[in-house]
This record gives sequence, structure tokens and C-alpha cells, in this order.
Amino acid sequence: MNYDLAIIGGGPAGYTAAEKAGKAGLKTVLFEKNNLGGVCLNEGCIPTKTLLYSAKTYSNALHAGKYGVTASGVSADIAKIVARKGKVVRKLVLGIKARLTEAHVEIVAGEAHIVDKHTVECGGQTYACDKMIVCTGSTTFVPPIDGIDTVPYWTHRDALDCKTLPQSLAIVGGGVIGMEFAAYFNTLGTKVTVIEMMDEILSTIDAEIAASLRAEYSKRGVTFMPGTRVTAVRNGDEGITVDCETSSGASSVTAEKLLMSVGRRPMGTGFGLENLDLATDDKRRIAVDKHLMSSVDGVYVCGDLNGNSLLAHTAVREAEVAVNHILGIDDEMSYAAIPGVVYTNPEVASVGMTAAQAAAAGIQCREVKLPMAFSGRFVAENEGVNGICKVVLGSDGKVVLGSDGKVLGAHVLGNPASEIITLAAMAITLGLTAEQWARTVFPHPTVSEIFKEAVS
Amino acid sequence: MNYDLAIIGGGPAGYTAAEKAGKAGLKTVLFEKNNLGGVCLNEGCIPTKTLLYSAKTYSNALHAGKYGVTASGVSADIAKIVARKGKVVRKLVLGIKARLTEAHVEIVAGEAHIVDKHTVECGGQTYACDKMIVCTGSTTFVPPIDGIDTVPYWTHRDALDCKTLPQSLAIVGGGVIGMEFAAYFNTLGTKVTVIEMMDEILSTIDAEIAASLRAEYSKRGVTFMPGTRVTAVRNGDEGITVDCETSSGASSVTAEKLLMSVGRRPMGTGFGLENLDLATDDKRRIAVDKHLMSSVDGVYVCGDLNGNSLLAHTAVREAEVAVNHILGIDDEMSYAAIPGVVYTNPEVASVGMTAAQAAAAGIQCREVKLPMAFSGRFVAENEGVNGICKVVLGSDGKVVLGSDGKVLGAHVLGNPASEIITLAAMAITLGLTAEQWARTVFPHPTVSEIFKEAVS
Repeated sequence: MNYDLAIIGGGPAGYTAAEKAGKAGLKTVLFEKNNLGGVCLNEGCIPTKTLLYSAKTYSNALHAGKYGVTASGVSADIAKIVARKGKVVRKLVLGIKARLTEAHVEIVAGEAHIVDKHTVECGGQTYACDKMIVCTGSTTFVPPIDGIDTVPYWTHRDALDCKTLPQSLAIVGGGVIGMEFAAYFNTLGTKVTVIEMMDEILSTIDAEIAASLRAEYSKRGVTFMPGTRVTAVRNGDEGITVDCETSSGASSVTAEKLLMSVGRRPMGTGFGLENLDLATDDKRRIAVDKHLMSSVDGVYVCGDLNGNSLLAHTAVREAEVAVNHILGIDDEMSYAAIPGVVYTNPEVASVGMTAAQAAAAGIQCREVKLPMAFSGRFVAENEGVNGICKVVLGSDGKVVLGSDGKVLGAHVLGNPASEIITLAAMAITLGLTAEQWARTVFPHPTVSEIFKEAVS
Repeated sequence: MNYDLAIIGGGPAGYTAAEKAGKAGLKTVLFEKNNLGGVCLNEGCIPTKTLLYSAKTYSNALHAGKYGVTASGVSADIAKIVARKGKVVRKLVLGIKARLTEAHVEIVAGEAHIVDKHTVECGGQTYACDKMIVCTGSTTFVPPIDGIDTVPYWTHRDALDCKTLPQSLAIVGGGVIGMEFAAYFNTLGTKVTVIEMMDEILSTIDAEIAASLRAEYSKRGVTFMPGTRVTAVRNGDEGITVDCETSSGASSVTAEKLLMSVGRRPMGTGFGLENLDLATDDKRRIAVDKHLMSSVDGVYVCGDLNGNSLLAHTAVREAEVAVNHILGIDDEMSYAAIPGVVYTNPEVASVGMTAAQAAAAGIQCREVKLPMAFSGRFVAENEGVNGICKVVLGSDGKVVLGSDGKVLGAHVLGNPASEIITLAAMAITLGLTAEQWARTVFPHPTVSEIFKEAVS
């Protein structure tokens, strides 16, 4: 069987590439050993958002009195919540399958083995291909902590399928995954402790926003241990004990459950990847050019596997760029405007540079900072909740017409940050100045108007 | 007292113009006889959204079971809901006052009387000005229906302050205001009937989306009477009776309360407006140029008063354009990308042309229509709810790279349509093609991704 394009991995990069290539008329085969949708759909973005929405529904019912609504006897049934999560995932997996089928993509269920750049084996069959996109994703990284193999720790996968609410949960790693699970379990009533090696949670986002989010969840009962290194884990009578060390000494946390959410790493082995002999860059990542082509002509590496950003939407865009290159359409990858979202409640969303990052890069900038209460709709829908919007503008970004200062970044704490951040992503992608952006008519009243307020 | 700029009216046009002018160094005076914020803030956009959010909170608690959450004894206290609405409005009015004060705007509380283009009188004082912006807004239009003066009908203002839930409510006019109140009272438990003269509610939006919204609220118990003319209203034993006529005959509706929401009209008289002798256009509106200047040099007419769009965000943009013209900054008004939102649940949002409007204008186009379920987040957060996204692309808008078809319009039914529609407004304002828009990285999973799906 001969194909124009073989795609190894059916996550966001793989299914996007397959649908696009199939629609464009390329004879395309996609290999996936698990469910279509990858980690993102099956055990990442979508299931966490489904759980978090149930938690939000629970929290909103509990606090409905703020809005003149009384609800008594509010309770969350975690088994039902998890069951619904499964249903949502199954529906979306079927949706992807339908779309790929409609695009005439051949889907092969099984683990692909790459023989060479033109040959893939799977299930005893051999598939010949002209081009190849490899997007086998990433896997949870669990650091070799003393005792880690002796305790029944969770990864995100176990946390997603937890059908009995734990009394207490220790989370090692206060990044996005750690914070989303902290939010979920804290909301449902678990006593949560977050242990983070860095001095602040969510080290990649604006420090003030990270600190505000931490303060908010502290108020709700989450214990944060920033600047804390885990030295060992062990089983105890009352659960799992995590031994820690800070600059001021040693301590320990005992909890019923332990979630390891330190990070993810590209799936650098398996699938016959070694047969491609792909060159790596100075960070030991698989090297790709701006079209996502590896050192091997005709072999593209997209998504988490190339280690550039480990986000589903980056994978989607990379896949588009790779397929465009195969189709001879002018396009190239940029990482300048990749939004990042933390689906806590309130949400955090961010795109482009923080003022600190701009300064570190030697770029003069100014930061416009507004309370979210500058949006009337935010006030109407967020009783007693504060939020922050920051827009980072190029140094000549005076906020008057006639300036040519460009939008460099935007950082938002407050719902629905995830949905409005794309406006800033567009502004950055298109190289807009504050004045150009401000000439958009933002509907009133919306939370999105906060950007107009910031740049007007 | 001499001013660079006198502004008559403190609604969205007035307060935006005043803050911008004041910040730019113009000596500015603003006259407002009621509260700052105008109809929008005091009895329009903001109070309705505050009430609707309480209704949404109530509805979400009632239906929390869909998400694995149980809430028993859910009830809405309309008196508390209305009290909170008042608090939100007061907070935002104070916010505007603070911002104007910070911009060194002189606020005069009282009804202004325009003597001539350089002279305003108020409270026995005379104010001289170089330029003038007139933005006295609009008022509810109540048609001269037989018997209208004999019944205690509501306008939106009464509906907003209703502290005892009526058993039944007849709404004359199924436009945005009518539908938002229908949504609010239906959700809280009132038996609502919507009487609309046109064949469909929400006549300015995409017909399929309007029909879908109507079908949804029909399911929830709202009675719709489209294509129905009101011939008379009268008091009856059980409330107010509305006599109607359709192509198939006469009928009548009796309800405890009657809301008249047929529309709004510019406030064309009063304030000494006649002393300016402003020219009108062929629709008998006050004529303004693309800088919002009237026929009288130096006198600008912004917001509802010019009758161009009667939306707060149009007023805001018009005010910016007018002040920019006064400041000598290049800018001009465009009405091509003014979003419109209906804050029902689900929301409807729309910007630019529908396919029908494009066809009527002789513009070849194609419409991409997707179910909102193409967004994974929509599926996660909208159990059992359908939605529609339509994007209208210029005729050569093939959805492949290399096309130069521009985005002409977008029409969305589904939450949070109001917050994501600005993405389409930006695309239209900037003249983006589908391919240019699609190169934005939309964060995953978000509802906003539906646009990327539509144009990819």
C-alpha cells in the first residue's frame, strides 16, 4: 500500500495533519495505538476541563446566594462527574474519527514501527509513504525521587479517574497540571497541598498573576509550599508522606493521595524512531526547521515530540504548517503568540511576553495594568471576585493614536480569560499596535472589552 | 467659563468622549441630568446582564445534575436579584465618575440647554465652548396602539425593577430587549408570551439562528406569536389583554403584566437642540459625516441620537472618532464590524453580514456552518445543548491557503458567543481572509476555536 503521507500518532498534531492532508487530496494513513485524540483528548485537556466544569457548577451552586439564588443540599457526586467525563471524551473521539473518515484518511489502529523514512510497519502490514509526519507525543515525567517506586502515587491519569474523593492530596509540581487538579479537588472538598520547587507556582506566567492565583486558592484552603524540594516519599499509616527541604529546613507532608505533576517529556524512543536517525539540537530535542521538517528530508516532527511547547494548540498549528509545506503552500511556524491557559476558577490566560520577559530580552516596553472591574460585565458576573488584566506594549507604545508601539503580550486573571486571550493572540500575530487594536468595536458589555480599555 | 469641549449627555458616547478628551488635555465639561452612564449603564445593558446572570445561576443550579452535581431546594429571590442589580450599577457609576475626575473632566449635574454652538446653559450658569459633542441618547418608543394609555404597561425600566415575579407576562416586540426579558422571566418561572409583528423574532440576525433560539425557548415554555400585529390593549379581570391579528385571524393574550419593547427612538427634541438647526438625512436622522460631525461645523452628534445603530459600543467608537477629529488625529467611523449580542442563554452574537444580507447586496459569498460541538470545550460545558456557528466568506473565500476571500460575517448561537464574537469583529475590521485568520493560534480547548475550525 502506497501513501502520499504517513502520520505516526493520532493526537492533536496527527489528527489535524491527517484531516488537512486528506481534504487536500493526499492519500493519507494515520497510525494510532490507543484512542484517536491522543493525551489531550483522552487524558488531558478535555477530561480536565470536563471535570473542572462540574467543579465550577458545584461551586456556583454553593455560592449562588451572592446572586440572589438559594440552593440547599448542594453535593457533588464524583463518580457521576467522572462518568460524564468519559462520555464527553467518547463523543469527541467519535467526532474525530468521523472527520478523518470524511477526509478519506485511512486510520490504522495499532502501534506503528518506522522502518525507514518511506516505510512503516503495523500489525504485520507494510505501508509505503512519500512523506511522514511523526507526532508520537509526550509522557509524564516522574523524577527519580528516593522511594518513588515504593508508593502508590498518581499521575494525571489516575487523578482523572478518581471516583472516591480523597480526604487529602499532596501535589508535587505547581505547574498547570498541578494547579488544575488542585483547583478541582479543593473545590470538591479535598485538603490539598501543593509542593513546588520554584519560588512561585506557574513559573512561566506573569509573577503577579501567579501570586494572585495562589493567594486566592490559599484563601480557599489550599496549602502552598513554594521553594520546596522533595527529598523522599514513603508509605505511612495515614497515607503517603512526602519529605521536603526548603532553605529554612526540612519538613514533611502526609496525605491520602499523592499526585506527581512535575512535567512531561517528549516520547523520544519507540516506534522505530531510531531508524530515522533524526538530528537533535543543543537542548537534545529533535531538531526541526520552521516548516517542522527534521534533519531527514520529508520527515516532519510535530507536537510534543519536538519539545517546543507541549501544548495541543501548538501541535495543531505545527501540523498545519507541516502539511502546508508538503502541499507547497507558503507558511512557517512562529511561537510568538502561543496562548497558555490555566483552567482554574478564575482562569488565567496569557500570550506573548510578560514585562519581565521583554525586559530580559532587552526590549523596552510598558505595561498597562487594569483591574478586571473596568469591565462592567465582569462586575455583573463576578460578585466579590477580583481580577487583573495586563497588556505589554512596545516601548513607543504610547496609548494614543499615532503611536507605533506594538502589542507584545497580554496576561489575564479572571473568567473567561481563556476565551478572550485569542484576541491578544491575533493582535500579536498580526503585529498590531495598541491604536490599531483599539479601533475594533468590542461588544458591550463583555469581559473582552478589558483589552479595549487597556489599549485605548 | 470657557471650555475646549462641551459634551451634552453622560452615556457611553459622552463619558467615553469626555475621558478621552480630558486625558488628551482638552478642557472638557460634561452635562448629565440623571446618573452618569446613561440608559446603558443605569437601565439597559448592565442591569439586564446582571439580572440575566442571576437567572443563569438559578438555571445552572436547577440543572446541575447534568454535571454530576445535586442541588435541592433551588429558589430565586427576585427582590434580592434586583437589589444586587442596583448595587452593581451604583458601583459602575462611581467608577465612571472616578475616571472622569481623574481625566480632569468637569461634570455638571443638570439638564443642559444649548443656546448656540458655542454656548450651553445649565443651572443658571453659562458655559462657553469651542467644540460640542451632543449625545443625548434615545428613548423607548411606544406605538400608539388603541388603549395603550389606559393600561399599566411596563417599559424595560419597570421590568428591571420588578421585585415580585409576575405569574404571566406578555411582551410586545421580539427584538433584543424583548428576548432578553423573555429569557429572564421565563427562567425564573413566569409564563411568557412574545408577540412579534415580523415573521421571526430578532429580525436583524441570521434567520436560522433566530429560529433555533425561538425553538429553544419554546421548549422551555415561552409562547411565540410571530407575524402578529397588536390591534388594541385593554384592562381585564385577570390582567392586561392584548388583542392581536394575524394573517389567519384575530386572537388575544391576557397576562398579569405587559412589557412594551417595540424599539427605541433618538431623543430628537429638548436640550435646546433646535437652536443648532442640524440638518437631517433622507431617513430624517440627524446627518453626520464619517467623523460624526453634523451639518454645523464643530458640533458632533454621537450615540443613539444619530440613530445609526443604537448600541452602546457603537456610541463608544463614534465618540472616539469624534474626539480624534477634534484632536486632528486621522480616524473615521465604519459600521462594517459592529457586533450585536442577545444575552439569552444560550447567547447569540453576530457581526458583519449574514449570507442573506451579502446576497441581497450582490456580494457572492459562501457560508461555512458548523455545529458548536466541533469545539471540545463547548461539549464539555454544554451538556445536551446545541449551537451553531456560521462564518460568511467572500465568494473567492475558498477555505484553503492561497485564497483571498475575506471574512464578511460571523453568527454564533452558543455560550459564550458574546465574548468570542470580537475575534470575528477584528477579522472583519482588519480585512483578514480566512487563511490569515486561521493562522492565529487559538488556545485549546476553547469555544473560540470554533472560528478556527470554520476557516481552516
